[in-house]
Amino acid sequence: MRIVVDAMGSDECPVPDVAGAVMAAQEWNDALFLVGDPQRVRQELDRHNTRGLNVEIVPAEQQILMTDKPGVVGQSKPHSSMHIGMNMVKDNLADAFVTAGNTGAAMAIATLFTLRRIQGVRRPALSSIFRVGTQNLILLDIGANADSKPEWLGQFAMMGKIYAQQALGIQNPRVALLSNGEEEGKGNQLIHEAQALLQSLELRFIGNVEPKDVFRGQADVVVADGFVGNIAVKSFEAAASLLFDLIRTEIKSDLVSTMGGLLARRAFRRVYKQVDPFEVGGAPLLGVNGVVIIGHGRSNARAVKNAIRQARLAVEGRIVEHIQAGLEKHSDIKMGAG
Amino acid sequence: MRIVVDAMGSDECPVPDVAGAVMAAQEWNDALFLVGDPQRVRQELDRHNTRGLNVEIVPAEQQILMTDKPGVVGQSKPHSSMHIGMNMVKDNLADAFVTAGNTGAAMAIATLFTLRRIQGVRRPALSSIFRVGTQNLILLDIGANADSKPEWLGQFAMMGKIYAQQALGIQNPRVALLSNGEEEGKGNQLIHEAQALLQSLELRFIGNVEPKDVFRGQADVVVADGFVGNIAVKSFEAAASLLFDLIRTEIKSDLVSTMGGLLARRAFRRVYKQVDPFEVGGAPLLGVNGVVIIGHGRSNARAVKNAIRQARLAVEGRIVEHIQAGLEKHSDIKMGAG
Repeated sequence: MRIVVDAMGSDECPVPDVAGAVMAAQEWNDALFLVGDPQRVRQELDRHNTRGLNVEIVPAEQQILMTDKPGVVGQSKPHSSMHIGMNMVKDNLADAFVTAGNTGAAMAIATLFTLRRIQGVRRPALSSIFRVGTQNLILLDIGANADSKPEWLGQFAMMGKIYAQQALGIQNPRVALLSNGEEEGKGNQLIHEAQALLQSLELRFIGNVEPKDVFRGQADVVVADGFVGNIAVKSFEAAASLLFDLIRTEIKSDLVSTMGGLLARRAFRRVYKQVDPFEVGGAPLLGVNGVVIIGHGRSNARAVKNAIRQARLAVEGRIVEHIQAGLEKHSDIKMGAG
Repeated sequence: MRIVVDAMGSDECPVPDVAGAVMAAQEWNDALFLVGDPQRVRQELDRHNTRGLNVEIVPAEQQILMTDKPGVVGQSKPHSSMHIGMNMVKDNLADAFVTAGNTGAAMAIATLFTLRRIQGVRRPALSSIFRVGTQNLILLDIGANADSKPEWLGQFAMMGKIYAQQALGIQNPRVALLSNGEEEGKGNQLIHEAQALLQSLELRFIGNVEPKDVFRGQADVVVADGFVGNIAVKSFEAAASLLFDLIRTEIKSDLVSTMGGLLARRAFRRVYKQVDPFEVGGAPLLGVNGVVIIGHGRSNARAVKNAIRQARLAVEGRIVEHIQAGLEKHSDIKMGAG
């Protein structure tokens, strides 16, 4: 397998990006391309033992920053590591592109400048993968589209189902809509219209789920419009981060608790590992004509390596072909208004 | 002050509802009316020492269950404790109504059958109050309206500002919109239109905030449409509950961690107290013609007592008059389409 890693993606780039790629090469022995500023990437790569590994540097003159505007940067930085890396996938020089960089920019460059959409896809969707016990769950859209139409949610459901089957290894994924209540009457106008549509599609639609059901593993694919999905994911993160901060502060604030915290640190480590987003590493931008995995800007090396793992799963699952085929069967959604 | 408490509200009613009312009577010496099944309420009340307290039972033949449909129950159970209690406020026999019962039913009964809306209010809003350090923050709407118009969000902002000023004691509250990003371009269509509107109103509009900003105290009033506000609150709760569960499980799963957990339990108690929704107890249904405070179905006695505290603040702040006056100044919002 041939995977391009954006060496200029993460907040601390190229350090974790390069280290994660080396870790992945060690584990799976794929061909890895590190795309970015050749000097900085070389310098970083030289700090690792790459003997016997198939790791190559692909130069890119420009770097996309987290502060760059997604709407502008596709045009203004045509020689970015994202452009060059995604074009390698487009030109079949590589099988997947992995980045921990600016999500909006990655989406714009994939959709409008390089890979473009799979035929029939109305809108691509950003996703997030949660581990629930030993299971995985995919939540989409988490922000590609701020205002969605029911037909788009229908496609998100299909794409999510296909990803769950082909990449996450879930036989007959349960698909649900994220709503403010499980009861049939709950939801807003968009949810009501999407419900009717999802019932008509070839998927195991189980109705509405609430945010708590995401962590209870009540569904395998949770569909939301991008605004709501984004608010949900950011709310999960905000609450978790608040709690970890409070626990840290309060445990330090008296001696007995500090001792207790030290004794319980193995338990805390196990908790953290279960909710650590870096264990998954990244999730696909679905609907574009190639495998693109996007990780968090704060990714460390392990996160980058795990994002590469996700890319491998997507490539092995031939996710792009399956989405194309799956949507062709449902050309009625493609033909909907909008 | 005269406060009606729905004795048939909480999941464990009338136990915590009565106990909370007695606690409140002890602390503030208000006149408290317990509305509900007279036998069951009397039996419960007899278990408390009420000597010298001004606590009275008001009989109600019907009880609204958590499973009752809000759209039906206003009509089908006209002698419920909610109807009777809210009508006491309407008829000026009491100053506020407090319930830990079915939120949707409370809203429907308040809006359509008893108190009705304050003149000029387009839609009432459910709210949630968060303590951030020593400050309070009000988030609204958290579910009264699944599909909102920009003008409604404008009114929610005004009502939230007035509540923050009059009941929460915040001088010049910072008002923000809950969005998927702080940047000006972020948000969906509704947020964009509401931004323009909020800028034109007499309030300190500080722009967009993200879910994490809620806990950072970046704003005093956070405005959302009811669907999104509901998803955010439920996502906060879901993440917090997941983490507490994981910590409990992992701390119990090895002996050293268990000892650590015991030593650190004071720290955990302090953490819990800071995020415990029962410390606030309840939050207002804003826009109806009377003070209505709604608490969680799982409320314990302390939560009910604290919800009564919130009712007292709302009454003391003359929140209904202030909302009416505030909206009159902005009759342009009232006149908007929809």
